[in-house]
Amino acid sequence: MKLEIYDSTLREGEQSATVTFTWEDRLKIIEELDRLGVSCIETGMLTCQRDLEFIRRAAALQLSHSSLSSFGATRRAGESVEDNEGLAMLACAPVSIVCIFGKSWGYQVEKVLRTTKEENLSMIRDSVSFLRDAGKRVIFDAEHFFDGYSDDADYALSVLRTAWEAGADTVVLCDTNGGMLPDVIGMATAAAVSAARETTQQTGQTCNVGIHCHNDMGMAEACSVSAVLSGAVHVQGTISGIGERCGNANLNTLIPVLQLKLGFSCIGQQLGLLTDTVRRINEFANRAFDEREPFVGGYAFTHKAGTHIDGVIKSPRSFEHIVPTAVGNMRNMIISSLSGRSAMVEKMARILPHLDRESPEVAAALEAVRIKEEAGYSYDDAEASLLLVIRQALGIRRQYFQVPHFKVMTDEGSGKEENMRSTAMIKVAVGGMEELCAAEGIGPVNAMDKALRQALVRFYPSIDQMHLTDFKVRVVSGGATAAVVRVVIESTDGVAVWRTVGVSPDVISASWQALRDSVEYMLELRAGEES
Amino acid sequence: MKLEIYDSTLREGEQSATVTFTWEDRLKIIEELDRLGVSCIETGMLTCQRDLEFIRRAAALQLSHSSLSSFGATRRAGESVEDNEGLAMLACAPVSIVCIFGKSWGYQVEKVLRTTKEENLSMIRDSVSFLRDAGKRVIFDAEHFFDGYSDDADYALSVLRTAWEAGADTVVLCDTNGGMLPDVIGMATAAAVSAARETTQQTGQTCNVGIHCHNDMGMAEACSVSAVLSGAVHVQGTISGIGERCGNANLNTLIPVLQLKLGFSCIGQQLGLLTDTVRRINEFANRAFDEREPFVGGYAFTHKAGTHIDGVIKSPRSFEHIVPTAVGNMRNMIISSLSGRSAMVEKMARILPHLDRESPEVAAALEAVRIKEEAGYSYDDAEASLLLVIRQALGIRRQYFQVPHFKVMTDEGSGKEENMRSTAMIKVAVGGMEELCAAEGIGPVNAMDKALRQALVRFYPSIDQMHLTDFKVRVVSGGATAAVVRVVIESTDGVAVWRTVGVSPDVISASWQALRDSVEYMLELRAGEES
Repeated sequence: MKLEIYDSTLREGEQSATVTFTWEDRLKIIEELDRLGVSCIETGMLTCQRDLEFIRRAAALQLSHSSLSSFGATRRAGESVEDNEGLAMLACAPVSIVCIFGKSWGYQVEKVLRTTKEENLSMIRDSVSFLRDAGKRVIFDAEHFFDGYSDDADYALSVLRTAWEAGADTVVLCDTNGGMLPDVIGMATAAAVSAARETTQQTGQTCNVGIHCHNDMGMAEACSVSAVLSGAVHVQGTISGIGERCGNANLNTLIPVLQLKLGFSCIGQQLGLLTDTVRRINEFANRAFDEREPFVGGYAFTHKAGTHIDGVIKSPRSFEHIVPTAVGNMRNMIISSLSGRSAMVEKMARILPHLDRESPEVAAALEAVRIKEEAGYSYDDAEASLLLVIRQALGIRRQYFQVPHFKVMTDEGSGKEENMRSTAMIKVAVGGMEELCAAEGIGPVNAMDKALRQALVRFYPSIDQMHLTDFKVRVVSGGATAAVVRVVIESTDGVAVWRTVGVSPDVISASWQALRDSVEYMLELRAGEES
Repeated sequence: MKLEIYDSTLREGEQSATVTFTWEDRLKIIEELDRLGVSCIETGMLTCQRDLEFIRRAAALQLSHSSLSSFGATRRAGESVEDNEGLAMLACAPVSIVCIFGKSWGYQVEKVLRTTKEENLSMIRDSVSFLRDAGKRVIFDAEHFFDGYSDDADYALSVLRTAWEAGADTVVLCDTNGGMLPDVIGMATAAAVSAARETTQQTGQTCNVGIHCHNDMGMAEACSVSAVLSGAVHVQGTISGIGERCGNANLNTLIPVLQLKLGFSCIGQQLGLLTDTVRRINEFANRAFDEREPFVGGYAFTHKAGTHIDGVIKSPRSFEHIVPTAVGNMRNMIISSLSGRSAMVEKMARILPHLDRESPEVAAALEAVRIKEEAGYSYDDAEASLLLVIRQALGIRRQYFQVPHFKVMTDEGSGKEENMRSTAMIKVAVGGMEELCAAEGIGPVNAMDKALRQALVRFYPSIDQMHLTDFKVRVVSGGATAAVVRVVIESTDGVAVWRTVGVSPDVISASWQALRDSVEYMLELRAGEES
């Protein structure tokens, strides 16, 4: 059975406290979502001419799978539809779908709208009819439906009926405050689905039920699933669940649960694109991706405990609930000196495929890792550095460059922090030739990164394609500034993403190690491709 | 009805890819969890003498609410309990509760343990009896129970019965792979609860059911609630849901849902401490707190959309599913500083005791804090800096010194990180007199700290008594090295301890702000004492 997936990242997502999108971001996100195959993409709230201008830009994109939708509200109390500017803009927006919200909770109608329940029904009826007459497919968002249903079920259902009868083919039940439990959502949705069936019998029209959940109880996905199991056929959510307060239902989780676990059809074959797509959208949102995310996170199929690693090697099913590649993700094992030989054999297979648990190379690599760990290194989150350590232990780490001179400075003239500047001066030597470069940066790591890449690009032009995407610092053992600092750097060349680690009592030195590893790893990658 | 809350942050939490705890962290976390009032605190895996040494340290703490538990495994196949070192250590550990895990899925028994189903039952029976005989309360973790139940319900239930009959009072159903939906969890739990009742009738022993969920489907909390509604009375989870892969059931979410929404008793009155406690524990774990977390996150009751702010002002119930103070959190509105006045009045009482909610000084201080927060500052863990910001807003911040010149350098001669050295050169001016000092340090922050104190000690001799005790760095917003870095420094003069914060794209500049604040705060303290 096919479910309609309705993405609201560009509207609900932007209501998140930390997210704002440029037009360029928005257009790129629409293209990504279309490639992923979601049914509907909400382009955002439509309240002014500038919004309309953006919708025209979006409508000009060549989309293959998705329809665009614009979002607005019903007319206000005591006003005629013709006088409502928002509705007029929705009617002429170059999109096939419009979604408008209205109240379905008497308490809200009286306390917030300060009008009568009857007028609220008229507002919905008039607004939906107006947009239907303008030739739009209309979706009605019933705000606070679940609070309304538990307060006065008859009124809440009459709101839904009004919207269907006026021509909305889908009415979306919203848990606006996010305070409902899955069971309650399931029961109320069943009542709405049965009202939809009755309305269809009476009117002959299509009357569908949709679901829109918030995450204030940490249950937005469970609640959405519960609604689908009660007959909802339209599911709203956002990428990575971004949204106001605790966020919205996370489509990254919902789509695989509905498709892989429950057999509904959502985005079909494109499910294999999920991990890459949501990572790119998080990049456009300039958001640190949560690696713990179900299905798509970097840790979703990462095993650390020795017994789990052992189990997964013997039989993946024993510690993995799905095959990671089904969502475009992959299995990963954290190597520590404790995780043992089997895990190391698997990790080393990329470099030397014919090793087994008894090979001396495996013992040597484990010993190298153990020594590093004693010094404060951890490869949990820095696989690129781990591969370099393994190469070193095997005596096959290539030295791409040397650094005969290195200096970083931070100074200021006026005693004001805003005037601080960092400068790095780095000399590299490659095959007898030297190159000295200096660069200013926002902070010393930025300056080092710039200077190192400037110095190396003459010898390795592909360096130009990589850049840092994240930088993490943590103090490893307690105590004062003289304690050991661990720096993890994430880099990308636009395709692959890798992480490297450096450890030192000195944050500059630790960052410098991680930077050098990052550059070396990329050169190693390219060398592998060329050979 | 009372539910037993069992915290596994120190074991499952540490299996998270990015978390490691020092012993000091662990002891502080145990004290926090005890104050919060959870029933049981797992001190960690017990596999070696060093683990046992830690448990002795933990057992020496004076706890008011919680019992400590140690974790281990059953004996191995074909081995006698007497030969198992782990069980011997569990038997003599100074804790009242031990929790051991075993298999309840035939597939796992055969593929991973590589033994017979019958021997698996004996392993469980022998191990539980052995620990009961040693005087322990025994909890049995039935690994993979739900996979086992759907594969062969009879065998899975016989595992539970074996554990109860051997003397475990609680058997915990684990969704080890995290792949189950709430409805399935609910049904299988009901079967386990009914087996528990039968066993109690036959044996007269206490036979309880517990639940332990993982978050691989984003539903760990919904699944746990579903189990409780089916009769589970013991709930396992971790603070902020930290754990392997996508994490474990999040107690920060589960406790308020169970207590506020479903009327179970979990931690009683201490629920009001929840927000502060989980924030401190995340600090100890040096983990960037997820402000989107349900109930306890900084955004959980933060309203951004205009219509929501309007609604909440008219009637909080319209956009809030609970009263934020019930969990020790507070409402926040992104565009207004209306909230938080009472809190600010309280905070300012140290400086100006006679203010009230309407005082213009309160509004000015809130506005100053709001502007700082927008730039990435957070005063959750840096009250000393907060007091300086308030003084500044009131126009009563005294300038103890100026810094006309400042320079920090890190360099090396040989291309080896071990030879890096950091040097700071700082000139301070106090009342027309200047002092220039330079110092070498282990890392730039250490060098700045030394140079600044050397330069100031001539003017303020008491500076000699203070030193840094901790230093934390965190990247606040994603992105590359140009993202904003927040540095928190902890200092002491041997009596008081205070924390200060600095924020900048530049780690050196952020550290420098926190250092300056720290010194200034101490001088302010002394001035207060002298006046």
